[in-house]
Amino acid sequence: MRIPILKLYDCLLVSIQWELDDQTALQFQEDLLHKIHEIGASGVVIDITSIDFIDSFIAKVLGDVISMSKLMGAKVVITGIQPAVAITLIELGISLNDVMTSLDLEKGLEKLQQELGE
Amino acid sequence: MRIPILKLYDCLLVSIQWELDDQTALQFQEDLLHKIHEIGASGVVIDITSIDFIDSFIAKVLGDVISMSKLMGAKVVITGIQPAVAITLIELGISLNDVMTSLDLEKGLEKLQQELGE
Repeated sequence: MRIPILKLYDCLLVSIQWELDDQTALQFQEDLLHKIHEIGASGVVIDITSIDFIDSFIAKVLGDVISMSKLMGAKVVITGIQPAVAITLIELGISLNDVMTSLDLEKGLEKLQQELGE
Repeated sequence: MRIPILKLYDCLLVSIQWELDDQTALQFQEDLLHKIHEIGASGVVIDITSIDFIDSFIAKVLGDVISMSKLMGAKVVITGIQPAVAITLIELGISLNDVMTSLDLEKGLEKLQQELGE
C-alpha cells in the first residue's frame, strides 16, 4: 500500500488518512523524497488530520522525513495535528523543531505560499 | 485500502495512483459521495495520470461516480487520462459525455474554478 502524493504546481500535497504501518511509513518516506527530487518541489504539505494515534516508530519516520525534505531544499508544513498526536510527539521528545504547522490543509498551503513568496 | 480524498476549500481532490481492485473502487465511490455531502463540495477533481490500464468494471464505476456526483450538484473534472485508458473507455462505449477533462491536476483545478466562478 502506498500513500498518494499529489503535485500541485511546485508543491506536493499528502493527506494521510489512516494509521500507517511501519512498512507503509518507510515506503512513504522513500516515495516523497523521490518525488521532491523528480519535480523539484519547493514545498510539501503533509495533512494528518485523520490520524488520532501515532506510535514512536511512525513519529520518528515523520520527524525524519521532515528533516530529509528540508535537506533537499523543500519547505514542509504539517497540518491537522490532533491533540493526542501532539501529546505523543512531545512525550516522545520529538518536538518537530522549526517545522511549520497549521490547522488544516488550506491554511497550510497559504502559509507555504507566503513562505515561498518571501 | 481506501483512496484518500483531500478537501481544498469547497473542492475535493482525488489522485488515483495505482490500479484499483473492485472492492476499492466501490469503497471509493461511497467515500466520495459521503464526502461531497459532508462538506457540501461544489467541485471534484479526479486525477488518473498514474492509471495506464482500466478494466470494464472500474470504467463503469468511474462513469457512475461522475454521474452520481453531478446528481448531488458537484462539478467533476477528470484529469490525466492516458491514451490506453481513453481507448478502453471509448471501446467499452463509456464516452464520459459532458465530463470536463484536463491534461493534469493544475489545469483541472483551473478549469473547475473557471466553471464555478461563472
